[in-house]
Amino acid sequence: MQEENYYFSKAFKYQNGFLFCENVSVGEIKVWLKNQGIARVTPAFVYSKSQIEENVLSYQNALSALKRNTQLNYALKANFNPSLVRIIKSLGCSLTLVSGFELELSLKLGFQPENIVLNGNGKELWEIELAVRNGCLLNIDGMFNATQTTSVCRKLQKKARILLRINPNIDPMVHKYNSTGIGGSKFGIQKEDLNDVLREIESEPLLQLVGIHCHLGSTITDIGIFRECTEMMSQLFSNLKNEGFEHMKYINLGGGLGIDYTKHIAMTTDPETINGMETKPLVIPTPADVVKVIDEVLGDKDISLILEPGRSLIANAGILLTSVLGVKKSEPKRYIVVDGSMTEVIRPALYSAYHHVDICEPSQVEDAHKMLYDVVGPVCESGDFLGKDRYLTTPHEGCTLAVFDAGAYCSSMGSNYNMRARPAEVLVNGNKLELIRRPDSLDDILGPYNV
Amino acid sequence: MQEENYYFSKAFKYQNGFLFCENVSVGEIKVWLKNQGIARVTPAFVYSKSQIEENVLSYQNALSALKRNTQLNYALKANFNPSLVRIIKSLGCSLTLVSGFELELSLKLGFQPENIVLNGNGKELWEIELAVRNGCLLNIDGMFNATQTTSVCRKLQKKARILLRINPNIDPMVHKYNSTGIGGSKFGIQKEDLNDVLREIESEPLLQLVGIHCHLGSTITDIGIFRECTEMMSQLFSNLKNEGFEHMKYINLGGGLGIDYTKHIAMTTDPETINGMETKPLVIPTPADVVKVIDEVLGDKDISLILEPGRSLIANAGILLTSVLGVKKSEPKRYIVVDGSMTEVIRPALYSAYHHVDICEPSQVEDAHKMLYDVVGPVCESGDFLGKDRYLTTPHEGCTLAVFDAGAYCSSMGSNYNMRARPAEVLVNGNKLELIRRPDSLDDILGPYNV
Repeated sequence: MQEENYYFSKAFKYQNGFLFCENVSVGEIKVWLKNQGIARVTPAFVYSKSQIEENVLSYQNALSALKRNTQLNYALKANFNPSLVRIIKSLGCSLTLVSGFELELSLKLGFQPENIVLNGNGKELWEIELAVRNGCLLNIDGMFNATQTTSVCRKLQKKARILLRINPNIDPMVHKYNSTGIGGSKFGIQKEDLNDVLREIESEPLLQLVGIHCHLGSTITDIGIFRECTEMMSQLFSNLKNEGFEHMKYINLGGGLGIDYTKHIAMTTDPETINGMETKPLVIPTPADVVKVIDEVLGDKDISLILEPGRSLIANAGILLTSVLGVKKSEPKRYIVVDGSMTEVIRPALYSAYHHVDICEPSQVEDAHKMLYDVVGPVCESGDFLGKDRYLTTPHEGCTLAVFDAGAYCSSMGSNYNMRARPAEVLVNGNKLELIRRPDSLDDILGPYNV
Repeated sequence: MQEENYYFSKAFKYQNGFLFCENVSVGEIKVWLKNQGIARVTPAFVYSKSQIEENVLSYQNALSALKRNTQLNYALKANFNPSLVRIIKSLGCSLTLVSGFELELSLKLGFQPENIVLNGNGKELWEIELAVRNGCLLNIDGMFNATQTTSVCRKLQKKARILLRINPNIDPMVHKYNSTGIGGSKFGIQKEDLNDVLREIESEPLLQLVGIHCHLGSTITDIGIFRECTEMMSQLFSNLKNEGFEHMKYINLGGGLGIDYTKHIAMTTDPETINGMETKPLVIPTPADVVKVIDEVLGDKDISLILEPGRSLIANAGILLTSVLGVKKSEPKRYIVVDGSMTEVIRPALYSAYHHVDICEPSQVEDAHKMLYDVVGPVCESGDFLGKDRYLTTPHEGCTLAVFDAGAYCSSMGSNYNMRARPAEVLVNGNKLELIRRPDSLDDILGPYNV
């Protein structure tokens, strides 16, 4: 908690020590949830509508200034909450998907199928069939995926508009689980294998090659990586055009732009206590920076550009609220035990990811001062932590903490481990609140079983 | 896949190259699932009833031979499928729990509340209240948990029978996420803090200290660790008795016994190709070994013993069936892409855990031979793998693979990431099959949202 008023973003700000989402304090959100009849109000995800809009528009404004066709496809896997997806849709986005259920949801929500991209290194035949029937774009991940698609097209006697997912063998310099375009990756087609796949496509008139796709990974903060990749893709695009693939239209550069998880502003209040953490401000390229670099490299070639951001559209628009159950020491460590856990935010356990954590209100502990704490949940394993070695004011029991940047890859990766309910989700729009997901009931969890 | 007939266990065996669960081949299980109206039959969890029985009885037989009261409490978090829990209940087990929903399920299933243990480093007040109302045993994790329990007991004017969770500061020599009884752990009470908690208990007549508890972690294979821990706990038990805690009755030693994940039998068919894997047979203590050591150390003291195994009761009774979508190379790697993923089995991604993977039927690929493969799923991230560097026969498209020892901490940790359906679960009993969980439908997943 910060003594002065300050901002993480337009959407999340502290005023006199209380955290607000847009115009509503976290305390008011908890009261509101209680009034909705929700017995246990935390943990809860809280999203800011204006932050999503700002994120989407920062891409859309940059893209609409270009003299080429562009398409902004939200990567649905980041967060599939339909209420959030509708906001993104209203701002002119399409979707990039990785499963058949995602495609069924997208059609329910009224997205134009022809702008949807179905991606994936392991598509099932029914998923490909659903995409081909609806005229979606399909990223072909390799030879067996091309063969699968051929068989579906022949069965349906219907053309498929396909892009080839290229493995550009570029290291995005991120966590190994977030790296997807390096040599030996499970994703995409390597240069050496491209000719075989192209011959398969040429031999099947129902496969219409309309573009190429790559995606280097996620949490990328080095803009040079986007330049290098675009140069490679632009050259390949021209080569394929010259080889006679006349329908070539799209370069799809995926997503992957990182965000400022480490919140330098907050951390520098006492930098010497942050064990070995980066204390230089992180300079992360803006969407406009990325779009500019890509457009420069593509130059005056007639290429339609698809981008597929996920995290950079939604991560910083969401926080997880969690309440303090108690504080304990276990030498040489001290713990803040909260009611949120790895079942809501698995990224710290899975990727050693840093999520900023802070208390949302002034501590009521007498003489409270800052100490190094691990913030942990109640799940019965040592991997259940939200933050380690955080310099935090000792909180009172019931004090609310926020886990920041929880809008992407948190709720969508959530589980019922330990039979925990996946929590409520609230959308904040100015001073209006909307319950956009109710917590799981025991019946929800047991529904598919024989009880 | 092995050429000769051999057994992983009584329940899972290969006959002429086909994998059977009890008397039913995997192929028959897939056909049966299809006939149940399940559109996509893999991935699917398959459990053996007889293997669960064998596992439970190996504990129960050893415990019932002792001249002391004993109680075998299944750690429900390993797998909460009610059909499996009922089998365990029928063999005389009680439960150890870590959440309020687990307690609600246990009561629904008819377990005697007075033998149930509610454990957890971060209990919420409603969970403690539910346990106290029902007269369950409560493991007190530290000072704030003692204070919480006092407040609940006063509110209800009802006694709580409590055990103290001790942090014995013993290193179980396992993955750091599986280690829970070492100095600095978030779990339990350290020696230095024990007196403070005891004074709190003495001052509150509604808190009745009936025992002590510890749990060192999981996947333990060194029996000496159980001996060391029991010695410490036995000494502490006597000290507390001498201090006047007259209701002291239980020592609860938790669980933690490991299992043979690496399946040495299978691996040694070509040991030199297994990159750096352990090729010496793993000697894992049996439940009888563990019980014997504990009983020896407790000697003729009048102590009731509680054990809380999870993994060793259920892990080897379950496999995940998954079907091959295709095979691809991505130099320097080769991949078998299957329809199962980290959403069903997250242990490899989360703990770098080894699960044995093998094909369930003879390959139909011409001239198929064994090569090094990574077995990966369709989830859109590089952490989505089930096994790395596995020496496997090149499988045909549609070939079934089994991920072994998937009975514990797989289904219970499952998610809908990428909007994937959590899969069907089947119980095999001799030649009888029972659907004990249907796959998630899209409506199941979207139910709590506003679509």
